[in-house]
Amino acid sequence: MNTPKDLFKKCYDFTLADDVKAQGIYPFFHPIDETEGPVVSFAGNKLVMAGSNNYLGLTADPRVKEASINAIKKYGTSCSGSRYMTGTVNLHIELEEKLADFFEKERCLLFSTGYQTGQGVIPTLVQRGEYVISDKDNHASLVAASIMAVGQSAKFVRYAHNSMDDLERVLKNIPETAGKLIVSDGVFSVSGEIVDLDHLVDLAKKYHARILIDDAHAVGVIGKGGRGTPSEFNRVDDVDLVMGTFSKTFGSLGGYVAGERSVINYIKHNASSLIFSASPTPASVAAVLASLEIIKSEPDLTTRLLENTDYVRQGLKNAGFKLMPSRTAIVSVIIGDQMKTMVFWKKLFDAGVYVNAFIRPGVMPGHEALRTSFMATHEKEHLDKVITEFCTIGRELEII
Amino acid sequence: MNTPKDLFKKCYDFTLADDVKAQGIYPFFHPIDETEGPVVSFAGNKLVMAGSNNYLGLTADPRVKEASINAIKKYGTSCSGSRYMTGTVNLHIELEEKLADFFEKERCLLFSTGYQTGQGVIPTLVQRGEYVISDKDNHASLVAASIMAVGQSAKFVRYAHNSMDDLERVLKNIPETAGKLIVSDGVFSVSGEIVDLDHLVDLAKKYHARILIDDAHAVGVIGKGGRGTPSEFNRVDDVDLVMGTFSKTFGSLGGYVAGERSVINYIKHNASSLIFSASPTPASVAAVLASLEIIKSEPDLTTRLLENTDYVRQGLKNAGFKLMPSRTAIVSVIIGDQMKTMVFWKKLFDAGVYVNAFIRPGVMPGHEALRTSFMATHEKEHLDKVITEFCTIGRELEII
Repeated sequence: MNTPKDLFKKCYDFTLADDVKAQGIYPFFHPIDETEGPVVSFAGNKLVMAGSNNYLGLTADPRVKEASINAIKKYGTSCSGSRYMTGTVNLHIELEEKLADFFEKERCLLFSTGYQTGQGVIPTLVQRGEYVISDKDNHASLVAASIMAVGQSAKFVRYAHNSMDDLERVLKNIPETAGKLIVSDGVFSVSGEIVDLDHLVDLAKKYHARILIDDAHAVGVIGKGGRGTPSEFNRVDDVDLVMGTFSKTFGSLGGYVAGERSVINYIKHNASSLIFSASPTPASVAAVLASLEIIKSEPDLTTRLLENTDYVRQGLKNAGFKLMPSRTAIVSVIIGDQMKTMVFWKKLFDAGVYVNAFIRPGVMPGHEALRTSFMATHEKEHLDKVITEFCTIGRELEII
Repeated sequence: MNTPKDLFKKCYDFTLADDVKAQGIYPFFHPIDETEGPVVSFAGNKLVMAGSNNYLGLTADPRVKEASINAIKKYGTSCSGSRYMTGTVNLHIELEEKLADFFEKERCLLFSTGYQTGQGVIPTLVQRGEYVISDKDNHASLVAASIMAVGQSAKFVRYAHNSMDDLERVLKNIPETAGKLIVSDGVFSVSGEIVDLDHLVDLAKKYHARILIDDAHAVGVIGKGGRGTPSEFNRVDDVDLVMGTFSKTFGSLGGYVAGERSVINYIKHNASSLIFSASPTPASVAAVLASLEIIKSEPDLTTRLLENTDYVRQGLKNAGFKLMPSRTAIVSVIIGDQMKTMVFWKKLFDAGVYVNAFIRPGVMPGHEALRTSFMATHEKEHLDKVITEFCTIGRELEII
């Protein structure tokens, strides 16, 4: 007789997290008890935050906080329903119209998280026998959305990271009669690298594919007035759909997709992750509305963000660190070993610098990295602190 | 030569929403411009809200609003990162501990939406060759999560709604050596019906399957002190995992899963929808914390909710409407025809009553319904208004 299999066995066998905790170098889920943007406090100790996606520092902006507070006063703490049913308030409509305008698209649609946004687009548009064609380094939320499409009998193929030669090889092998969606991060989330959009657009036209760009790490960072990747390349009309998140530059939570009217209308009436999920809270939507006004009226925030990042990038490069290719607000320092990455992380933490440890399964073996990202509101002393501590520990661990 | 296929053709061909709008009976995405809980305003017109999931009326509770506002003041408008990385603040930990305690489980884990919670559990636990076994009427978010598991080579099988005979038939056909997760709504979202938990637990034990119950519509409604379905049946220890949402009783946005330490720890370190999604905002977490205290200290809110719902249920039943089986806070009136459902919806809307129209693909043909749900904060005059308008229009349309 066979022994019954327990679904939870994999959980009982999973000891990695406990093992790393026992070694005192566990780099995840540490709670922040106070935050002032570029400086945060963990268990009473102040650290320079060099790992947040709060690019323009807007989560702590008094105007953004006030808008959010006023929305709670007026609309309460939740919409208690999906956009489809009882969960739409005026603020949602206002934000959709303003974002469509900002991104120069006909229509825009909000989602409750950036993570859910890809799911609202990919498995909704790419149906049985159609193809989602994805960069191998695309964000995990796009992978999850593509896997969902596979579960509904769509095809999911990937091409080598940012390789337009490989993308063409993949496109050539897909039947002409199949619908195709090319999906790419605008700015890749681990490295900060920018997609080769000009060539991607050319290939899409040649092979009759549609394009979805996820600009989560691009908005507020590149493009005219922070409008992201299509704007950076002057290719706004050539990119069919742009999506993004509110938990980075916009200082809030949620996501959006923008494109032509018919396509957004179709998504609006068919996307499970929209129709069956409670809508973004009034507080979150109001925060984005306030942030958007600031982004539009203060383009120097983006300039300062890039100056801050370049300063650290140059400092770490000069010190001999191996960096992933990037000219955006992300500087990823390749350590190339899982244990060393966690030890480096812990030493930075103890020295007063908070960064993100990227280990498996987030990155491939050999690409383990400490990912740093910066804010417009970092002061020079914060940036110097980051460089100094990196150099001290890097020498100690013989990374440089 | 073959004609290239345009992925967007399905969007250009989709005219249903525009057609219904042209007829003036479009029941979706109507924006609310003011809300006082049981009464809301659409384009300046006040309506009784009989379609919200704000069961205990807590979104408008001054204590909940104040807690949420204070969290924005202290932590800002966003955590700008996932729980895993930079997105954990003390409030998240506090809420996880208090919810684990409330649901009498070892550990609890928060997600940014209820929709994403199922995705954090099902495709994470149910892997290649293992089975997710799902009630046919489970919420769409559980279906999406199961489809994601299928995309990763898990098996997805369904049984007839709440039929324990059919569940046993399905379980018999699955190899003993395969891991199995039975997934069911505690209270079904369309009808308000309660799962047959006693028999479900017996079958799970007999066939060595684990159980996940989604208590989105059960918490605050049934069980000891509103603790949901497992508590209602005195089966807390027999249900391996309970999940739920914050956008209903808890007056916020987000979701949670609770269970034994090892399983929650595994999900915490392997679930894509947790690790790669920005964390719930401080405002949303603080709202749940405040709501939880109110739920614990004011059990009469649940009593009032059920009294209110029973009052309407009895009124509509006496008038001759055909209702779906329910003793929870949902009363679904079967209309059985798509066009009649939308016309009925519009007439109720114009008469000052807001309900939800459930048409395809939300329900099967013949089951088109007007779904009503109630709040602890509805006054008798609101409930009478709902019954009166239903009766008037029901007679006019010859439903009763």
